[in-house]
Amino acid sequence: MKKLLEQTGFSLNLVWVLLTGYMIMFMQAGFAMVETGFTRAKNCGHTMAMNFMVYTIAMTGYWICGFAIQWGGTADPVVTATMPSAAAFALGPDINALNKMIGITIGDKFYGLFGAKGFFLLGDDLYKGPILALFMFQMLFMDTTATIPTGTLAERWKFTAFIAVSFVIGAFIYPMFGCWVWGGGWLSALGKNLGLGHGMVDFAGSSVVHLCGGTLALVGAKIVGARIGKFNKDGSANPIPGHNIPMAVVGTFILAFGWFGFNPGSSLSGMDTHIGVIAVNTMLASASGAITGMTVTWLRFGKPDPSFMCNGMLAGLVAITGPCAFVDPWAAYLIGAIAGVLVIYAVEVVDACRLDDPVGAISVHGVNGAWGIIALGIFANGKYGGGWNGVDGNVRGLISGDVPQLVAQLIGIVTCIVFVGTCAWITFTVVEALIGNRVSAEDEMEGLDIPELGILGYQADLNPEEK
Amino acid sequence: MKKLLEQTGFSLNLVWVLLTGYMIMFMQAGFAMVETGFTRAKNCGHTMAMNFMVYTIAMTGYWICGFAIQWGGTADPVVTATMPSAAAFALGPDINALNKMIGITIGDKFYGLFGAKGFFLLGDDLYKGPILALFMFQMLFMDTTATIPTGTLAERWKFTAFIAVSFVIGAFIYPMFGCWVWGGGWLSALGKNLGLGHGMVDFAGSSVVHLCGGTLALVGAKIVGARIGKFNKDGSANPIPGHNIPMAVVGTFILAFGWFGFNPGSSLSGMDTHIGVIAVNTMLASASGAITGMTVTWLRFGKPDPSFMCNGMLAGLVAITGPCAFVDPWAAYLIGAIAGVLVIYAVEVVDACRLDDPVGAISVHGVNGAWGIIALGIFANGKYGGGWNGVDGNVRGLISGDVPQLVAQLIGIVTCIVFVGTCAWITFTVVEALIGNRVSAEDEMEGLDIPELGILGYQADLNPEEK
Amino acid sequence: MKKLLEQTGFSLNLVWVLLTGYMIMFMQAGFAMVETGFTRAKNCGHTMAMNFMVYTIAMTGYWICGFAIQWGGTADPVVTATMPSAAAFALGPDINALNKMIGITIGDKFYGLFGAKGFFLLGDDLYKGPILALFMFQMLFMDTTATIPTGTLAERWKFTAFIAVSFVIGAFIYPMFGCWVWGGGWLSALGKNLGLGHGMVDFAGSSVVHLCGGTLALVGAKIVGARIGKFNKDGSANPIPGHNIPMAVVGTFILAFGWFGFNPGSSLSGMDTHIGVIAVNTMLASASGAITGMTVTWLRFGKPDPSFMCNGMLAGLVAITGPCAFVDPWAAYLIGAIAGVLVIYAVEVVDACRLDDPVGAISVHGVNGAWGIIALGIFANGKYGGGWNGVDGNVRGLISGDVPQLVAQLIGIVTCIVFVGTCAWITFTVVEALIGNRVSAEDEMEGLDIPELGILGYQADLNPEEK
Repeated sequence: MKKLLEQTGFSLNLVWVLLTGYMIMFMQAGFAMVETGFTRAKNCGHTMAMNFMVYTIAMTGYWICGFAIQWGGTADPVVTATMPSAAAFALGPDINALNKMIGITIGDKFYGLFGAKGFFLLGDDLYKGPILALFMFQMLFMDTTATIPTGTLAERWKFTAFIAVSFVIGAFIYPMFGCWVWGGGWLSALGKNLGLGHGMVDFAGSSVVHLCGGTLALVGAKIVGARIGKFNKDGSANPIPGHNIPMAVVGTFILAFGWFGFNPGSSLSGMDTHIGVIAVNTMLASASGAITGMTVTWLRFGKPDPSFMCNGMLAGLVAITGPCAFVDPWAAYLIGAIAGVLVIYAVEVVDACRLDDPVGAISVHGVNGAWGIIALGIFANGKYGGGWNGVDGNVRGLISGDVPQLVAQLIGIVTCIVFVGTCAWITFTVVEALIGNRVSAEDEMEGLDIPELGILGYQADLNPEEK
Repeated sequence: MKKLLEQTGFSLNLVWVLLTGYMIMFMQAGFAMVETGFTRAKNCGHTMAMNFMVYTIAMTGYWICGFAIQWGGTADPVVTATMPSAAAFALGPDINALNKMIGITIGDKFYGLFGAKGFFLLGDDLYKGPILALFMFQMLFMDTTATIPTGTLAERWKFTAFIAVSFVIGAFIYPMFGCWVWGGGWLSALGKNLGLGHGMVDFAGSSVVHLCGGTLALVGAKIVGARIGKFNKDGSANPIPGHNIPMAVVGTFILAFGWFGFNPGSSLSGMDTHIGVIAVNTMLASASGAITGMTVTWLRFGKPDPSFMCNGMLAGLVAITGPCAFVDPWAAYLIGAIAGVLVIYAVEVVDACRLDDPVGAISVHGVNGAWGIIALGIFANGKYGGGWNGVDGNVRGLISGDVPQLVAQLIGIVTCIVFVGTCAWITFTVVEALIGNRVSAEDEMEGLDIPELGILGYQADLNPEEK
Repeated sequence: MKKLLEQTGFSLNLVWVLLTGYMIMFMQAGFAMVETGFTRAKNCGHTMAMNFMVYTIAMTGYWICGFAIQWGGTADPVVTATMPSAAAFALGPDINALNKMIGITIGDKFYGLFGAKGFFLLGDDLYKGPILALFMFQMLFMDTTATIPTGTLAERWKFTAFIAVSFVIGAFIYPMFGCWVWGGGWLSALGKNLGLGHGMVDFAGSSVVHLCGGTLALVGAKIVGARIGKFNKDGSANPIPGHNIPMAVVGTFILAFGWFGFNPGSSLSGMDTHIGVIAVNTMLASASGAITGMTVTWLRFGKPDPSFMCNGMLAGLVAITGPCAFVDPWAAYLIGAIAGVLVIYAVEVVDACRLDDPVGAISVHGVNGAWGIIALGIFANGKYGGGWNGVDGNVRGLISGDVPQLVAQLIGIVTCIVFVGTCAWITFTVVEALIGNRVSAEDEMEGLDIPELGILGYQADLNPEEK
């Protein structure tokens, strides 16, 4: 009976992981609507199609090797000797089959680099509900990252280039950095090995998902270049308004809905009552981000542009993603409020750098992803996270007296930008050389739907006549 | 092990409350689509923006003081001495920190007026998953109420006025009435104190959410006035068709989906198998409402207008919200069917009163909210609700022999209309005096998107030329 | 305490069934968007209205007698003597009230034909959460079937005829076949009675839901006829492009999201950790279907038409629905990949047969429904399904050495096509005689919104003048 009770807890956790995972999957629809709504009608089919196929292509890459790289070593005895596997704790002993980590040992400390078990999900020891549920949940996180560049590069990215880059993100770039933070890799071990707080801590992915996606978008924007007509010769930017605000608003609601899966689901546990705290922190930061985003826009430009209401909310959500489990509700509200301000000014900086980001993804995901990681290092309240990454005691930030934690956070940010940025630069450069990243100027002016896909996204009614 | 088993039950309830709560949050997207679809394209950005920001602004008010007012006294020993806290029963002893009720004692009876604990969610005894989950769930109920007036007042409400009113709803109006019915207040004590059945009973909010929202909308429509061109000098009404039926239909589906969170989630318990009954009653009433709404429209006007299919379904859902746990499936189908008829005639009455309600919210939420509360007093079957509001035995209506229950229901309806109506009248009047409720006639004719927000909701493609 | 533990497991299952059921309900919105997006703007109100009302009308039929026919005998002692009720196992002993099966006995074998308990859900022994949850879940499966013909017959089906046919599907056609496969009927007993593997096996409805719906659509397309202008006199087909690809893409995402309820929810159990496997198989097949659908289109027609990305994903999802619990992830990916190819060629065959299917539902649901049932007979890996349909050992297909299982699958397919096809033929023919299936040619050319519903789906803004 004791075993059944234990199993009931594991099952509740599994149900929680699956259902919150489903909500994250639904965020793909939200991204599709936000990105398409904020861009022009003439490209709507193309922007939608990228958002649709990224789910399938990046998933394929993650299935082939991404999951093995990110999670294949999470339960390697070398890792668990110092850092117990959170996934195994929540989902049960089946997870222990993910037991092969490649890494280096310096002195007597082990630094994990990447996992090496789970390719194609082959093997009977992996054919278990908990392992496959972990695959699904983590795949969906990765797909969120992979869909961020499609917004920044919308209206000019070649479909073949998009496919190639998305595959590489899912198969390699995201999983590597993800392993370092969540899969038992070296960033998570900074606490245990070097005494930097609890090591790099990112509860639900301000860095792993959002800063990573924002960095990919940034490098892409640099290499692919701006849309025709975005920048004047004097460097000033022209606004190119999106065609459908209602679509973007509904998409934002879908994203905010999915975030309730994203953040609380990252507990991997329905038995941990702290999920209630995480949900509320997520909700409060989304509200304050939208409010400050609207207010600052109103004060600066005279009108409360709804696109900044949306981007303010998304900025708040991105920023709270990392610290959501470790801060008080008042701090969550504050973190979101700052994010809503940051996103407005970041958009102007991006413009000033002559980077063309039609949906503001670099500002929303990149800048506020970094802000979220820093915010954790500041506002972590020391009330949660006992034993996290194998370090005793709860996670603390500046306000509760832990300076080294903030150092670990900063190391994480720099690592993310350098590693992901380098990978992105290589990937886009190789793609440029092999197939080209960009459609022709004629196609861009016409709109990408017919040249790239052969069908108009919005089609006036045709009544074919019988011949 | 016994403790772990108990905790497993609490955790299942917590997971249930969170996941159903998320679904309610998603209803905001549904309201946005229904209200925007049923109004004109020239205001689509504005209608969307109101539906978007109401979520954040009313939430902020509820966080500051609304939650404390509504729920801060639910576990006050003065209250629980006679009425055990349903929230504590479902979510565990952490809820007992909500222990401060302000009220009056008449004779030896205590009548709760408002709670006074939980402002800004501050305090370590409130930093608990179950309490914050309760906050989230109840906040989302409140936000449903707050978004009802945005439909009735669409196409003419000034954005600043909308912000002010929404804040007051979330901070004060809704929480007060909500406390009286659900938070341990005096309406719920009518049974224990005065022998009126189980006191005012409203399982999931036909009154607390919908009649409240409908009353706010009614008063707003009276004070803000009709859209230009809605009424002729002879008092007859002109139809102003909405611009996008598909958007409204999809929005209705989203609402019907979210209602499966709204009603069954109100059990606060996944351990209570009665949630299966509640879900089916909700589903059946939605179907019969749509069918009678369609049929009556078809018979009266010759065509089955899809806007009345939608409003019929919503009417059925509103009506079953209150009695959903207490009636048989046949009664649920009947209650919904009556609601679908009521809404058609109510729309005509509202028109005849020269009240302009573009989306029919007064009829859907107000009239059918009241109908739902009455329906409970008629059809409650005496098979559920043992101990509800501290009264022994199950909840019974006329058909199972309890007349005083119906009296309690009627007292609840009158109280809601008088209290909320008065608060609404004061709020709209003060806002009128301070900032004005209404946009200028020029802006209204032009469409509110540019004057109020500075950006068009639907934008034709612009190809900026490089200078 | 043992009882409470047992009850906790049942409650987790009930919560799982409800929440995944809700997701299936939301698929109605997905179907509405896919079908409306892939058809013309002039009919958008009508296509939406059909997708909306089918939910309510078919539900009413299922409530009156459909549920009783399909599930009323699942716990009849005559049935459970040889095949234990999976629903009772997952949801608890309340299910045993569904105890009346009508069937025939040949030799000493019992072959169930239809259930006979549960009409109108009347009876106190049925007023239980688990039974009503089963009703809800199964109703939503049925409604998926009922909404398939609305796509194939869009742009020409008379609204009254649609209502009549939908009612018959929900009340009779679907429940009969559903009883045979899932409700304890004769197809599920082919293993126990005749030694054909585990009898007809269809985990989540490749046949019961999709082949059934596809067959209804096929017969409807034949009887109702093609849209004016679809086919030339030489038999060649004209493309009639849909008006809104973004709407269809978002609808497809909603369907893919809902499918995570559909397939894993069909376990009826959150305690069965195999739901993780089912979710991942579902996800992988959706990806590979979209990828091959896109690729084949690209190779054949030179452009990767997004409508085939969508239909490829849906084809993969339909195909994996039946075998999702019984195959390895690699097989799931392969099954989906084949489905994505099949759907492209099937669309051409349907065209060649001069059947007009605006959304490709016959190819997606019919052809790939059959493929899914066959795929189970081929790829079942012998690792799951012990005791399924009362047969010892796990379910095996060709690759794990069980030939008779494939025979049972083929019998199921033939039965579905013959029985449902015959019922469909009778229904459409009777409707043709009584009220006519088709709108007038004038209405069809004009667009159905005004003639059939009295209101335009898309309405240009009207500013009524005050008189």
